[in-house]
Amino acid sequence: MNATQKRDLAITVLIGVLLWFCPVIPEGVKPEAWHLFAIFAATIVGFILSPMPIGAVAFVGITVAALTKVITVKVAISGFGNGTIWLIICAFLLARGFIKSGLGRRIAFLIIKAIGKSSLTLGYAITLSDLVIAPATPSSTARAGGILYPIIRSLSTALGSEPGETRRKFGAYIMQLEYQANAITCAMFMTAMAGNPLCVELAEKAIGVQITWGSWAMAALVPGVISLIIVPFLLYKIYPPEIKDMPTAKKMAVDELEKMGPMTRMEKIVAVVFVGALALWATSELTKIGATVVGMLAVSVLVLTSVLTWDDVLSEKGAWNTMFWMGALMSLAGALSSSGFIKTVADMAGTAIQAAGMSWLTAFMLLIVIYVYSHYAFASLSAHIGAMYAAFLAVAVSVGTPPLLAALAFGAVSNFMMSLTHYGGGPAPILYGEGFVTQGEWWKIGFIMTTVNLVIWLGIGSMWWKMIGLW
Amino acid sequence: MNATQKRDLAITVLIGVLLWFCPVIPEGVKPEAWHLFAIFAATIVGFILSPMPIGAVAFVGITVAALTKVITVKVAISGFGNGTIWLIICAFLLARGFIKSGLGRRIAFLIIKAIGKSSLTLGYAITLSDLVIAPATPSSTARAGGILYPIIRSLSTALGSEPGETRRKFGAYIMQLEYQANAITCAMFMTAMAGNPLCVELAEKAIGVQITWGSWAMAALVPGVISLIIVPFLLYKIYPPEIKDMPTAKKMAVDELEKMGPMTRMEKIVAVVFVGALALWATSELTKIGATVVGMLAVSVLVLTSVLTWDDVLSEKGAWNTMFWMGALMSLAGALSSSGFIKTVADMAGTAIQAAGMSWLTAFMLLIVIYVYSHYAFASLSAHIGAMYAAFLAVAVSVGTPPLLAALAFGAVSNFMMSLTHYGGGPAPILYGEGFVTQGEWWKIGFIMTTVNLVIWLGIGSMWWKMIGLW
Repeated sequence: MNATQKRDLAITVLIGVLLWFCPVIPEGVKPEAWHLFAIFAATIVGFILSPMPIGAVAFVGITVAALTKVITVKVAISGFGNGTIWLIICAFLLARGFIKSGLGRRIAFLIIKAIGKSSLTLGYAITLSDLVIAPATPSSTARAGGILYPIIRSLSTALGSEPGETRRKFGAYIMQLEYQANAITCAMFMTAMAGNPLCVELAEKAIGVQITWGSWAMAALVPGVISLIIVPFLLYKIYPPEIKDMPTAKKMAVDELEKMGPMTRMEKIVAVVFVGALALWATSELTKIGATVVGMLAVSVLVLTSVLTWDDVLSEKGAWNTMFWMGALMSLAGALSSSGFIKTVADMAGTAIQAAGMSWLTAFMLLIVIYVYSHYAFASLSAHIGAMYAAFLAVAVSVGTPPLLAALAFGAVSNFMMSLTHYGGGPAPILYGEGFVTQGEWWKIGFIMTTVNLVIWLGIGSMWWKMIGLW
Repeated sequence: MNATQKRDLAITVLIGVLLWFCPVIPEGVKPEAWHLFAIFAATIVGFILSPMPIGAVAFVGITVAALTKVITVKVAISGFGNGTIWLIICAFLLARGFIKSGLGRRIAFLIIKAIGKSSLTLGYAITLSDLVIAPATPSSTARAGGILYPIIRSLSTALGSEPGETRRKFGAYIMQLEYQANAITCAMFMTAMAGNPLCVELAEKAIGVQITWGSWAMAALVPGVISLIIVPFLLYKIYPPEIKDMPTAKKMAVDELEKMGPMTRMEKIVAVVFVGALALWATSELTKIGATVVGMLAVSVLVLTSVLTWDDVLSEKGAWNTMFWMGALMSLAGALSSSGFIKTVADMAGTAIQAAGMSWLTAFMLLIVIYVYSHYAFASLSAHIGAMYAAFLAVAVSVGTPPLLAALAFGAVSNFMMSLTHYGGGPAPILYGEGFVTQGEWWKIGFIMTTVNLVIWLGIGSMWWKMIGLW
């Protein structure tokens, strides 16, 4: 650890200790619940300051909770045997199949070949490529960084656009485009971003609302498609590339596809498994086969057909890291919910809001706006969700917002708020890192796009949700 | 997969299918319990034939069980959030600290320097080195292969003993010695072999007996120490090295220690964590801090002090593999127990044994002997435990064997039976691989040593257990 990390660790511990020994605690909160809150708060501070990787922070958090007997060890590690965690682990492994087999690249090149005629249509091609693989790729970083970044990076070079003087020719535009597209596809499927299942779990634990894979996808369909149509076009207008026509992209795609040759056995298997998993996820209410079992089945098939070796599975560090931070956070957040802490605090906030004479709609919109724009303070969607989702959701419901509407709205915005900054989500450092886009440009576009998405999802989205009877 | 693996996979599946559709099932067994047994049996066959790594076999096993709705997905993955599994994961990480810091090597060299004066005392030095690190190294392969093998291998070379003509000078003896010593140290601590906690879990699930870390260590103390004194001496007599005096070993140890210099900060931290963990494990009945929490604390300290990076943690594939196979097996075995299947079958076997007029002691001894020598058919202790431990234990108890005696005895023999063959446990391929010892010699010595250990543990051991009031 360097000096900054040591300082951040000290701050994290200090906050926990101060809260723990705080002499005044809210009325109606039991001391054990308050101690749990102190550990939870310190863990979240640790997520934000990151003196260590968040998986390590989370693990230390549950260790302290178990050691101080605030929760039992059974509760502390219960998150690691949680169905949602294992859905995510399975999806990580399915995504590995996409990358390993080359199917992800092939899909992208096929789409570029088909519709990548101008900078604008190429933008849509990249958007569509990201969308197609999103349902089975919960690591938005793997999607943007592992599959699409190598393609758009080499495309920029081929077009003579590099960081520096030539950046606005093409590279700056396409890097922003992928980031904006990725932020939207994240919001469209429960399995498209690692933090989404955390929302689902927290919604169930905090307010008892159940969201299935299918209901999430259904709810996101209309606002998601509208965002995916509007945002690339808007970006093309406000941040246009100098190169408009795009013969190069098509040629590159044709060349690369030629090099790849016909689909391999491995690609075919991944394609079948992927389509099968989508079909089973979408129909799980009919078949009564839960989303986690579908994920396990997909992984089993990939292993049985040797698409993934067992070593591939064991080496999938992204999965284990997610298991650590998310499993530990689920344990803590779940215990905090069952202790009644969140409900008590939410009721207090709710009473205050109602005393101020605010309608539920006003209060709900205000909560959403605070939630979204506070993402300037977070370097990770998941940290943000872990810190604020359950509490904001509980407050919104306590003032009268229909529970499912609130759960879905907070869930959706938890994704596209990543647009705001150049550190707001996993893909950001990759797409920002080389310097195609300046920080000022990034923040300006980020603010505009987040606001546009907010209007689309809350405006059209909530109407759509009303139409399909979600509230 | 090659042709043999495909055949083995087909056999595994076939056995499961045949059992599933078996028209006649034992009276008193519910169809769902029988179906679960079919999946469990196929999984164990898969462990034995290993068409894929056992982690993969186990994962497919629970996937099939959840998919066919024989068990819920919650039950299927419950093993991954099990306290015993996380104790083992933490111990794997603590062992990584031993290897990474070099503390394991230093301990071995210090012991060799102190008592490695002749081939015989060097044998004891190696035995003692293995023993010292055993409580925190659940991978006996890591202990034998990662820490001690490199030392005894270079010692053999230094003494001019290589596979082939010169093998009996020293190498053959020391390879066997480490294998025999390792088999005994495995039996001495719950955390010295990955399969031991499985015994603990199965004992609780099958017959309701609870074994703590401290009670295991206490029970194993006397028979373990006697075995560790007798076995190396016996080996020295029946399989003597040609070189008896050992100035080389001491010199090598002194040189290596010089090269290593003074203890590093990392080694010191690992030493403190290790001693602290041992102290807390041994006193957990007093402090009421469970073994898993102690393990989590140890890992937290290693991470907080940067002895282990977070990447070290995520890269610890041995831990994830163990989590997969053992977690999945626990889920299946646990469900099979709660379905009443094991009890029904054990009662039937017990009734038959009692009808034959056998006393519990005779029946118990017979069961132990069958259990141990059937290890000729297994390539892994854990597979053997998973396949037979719970059932044999249940039968022994149903004929009247005191439960704790039975649980401990089957647990102990589950370790040293690995001596029997050159494939009976994880360290075997490493120590056998280079060809210092012939297969004939290995099997002969293995049979003798296993039998000697059996006499010590069942004879003196059971008296010791009576003395300390375990039965």
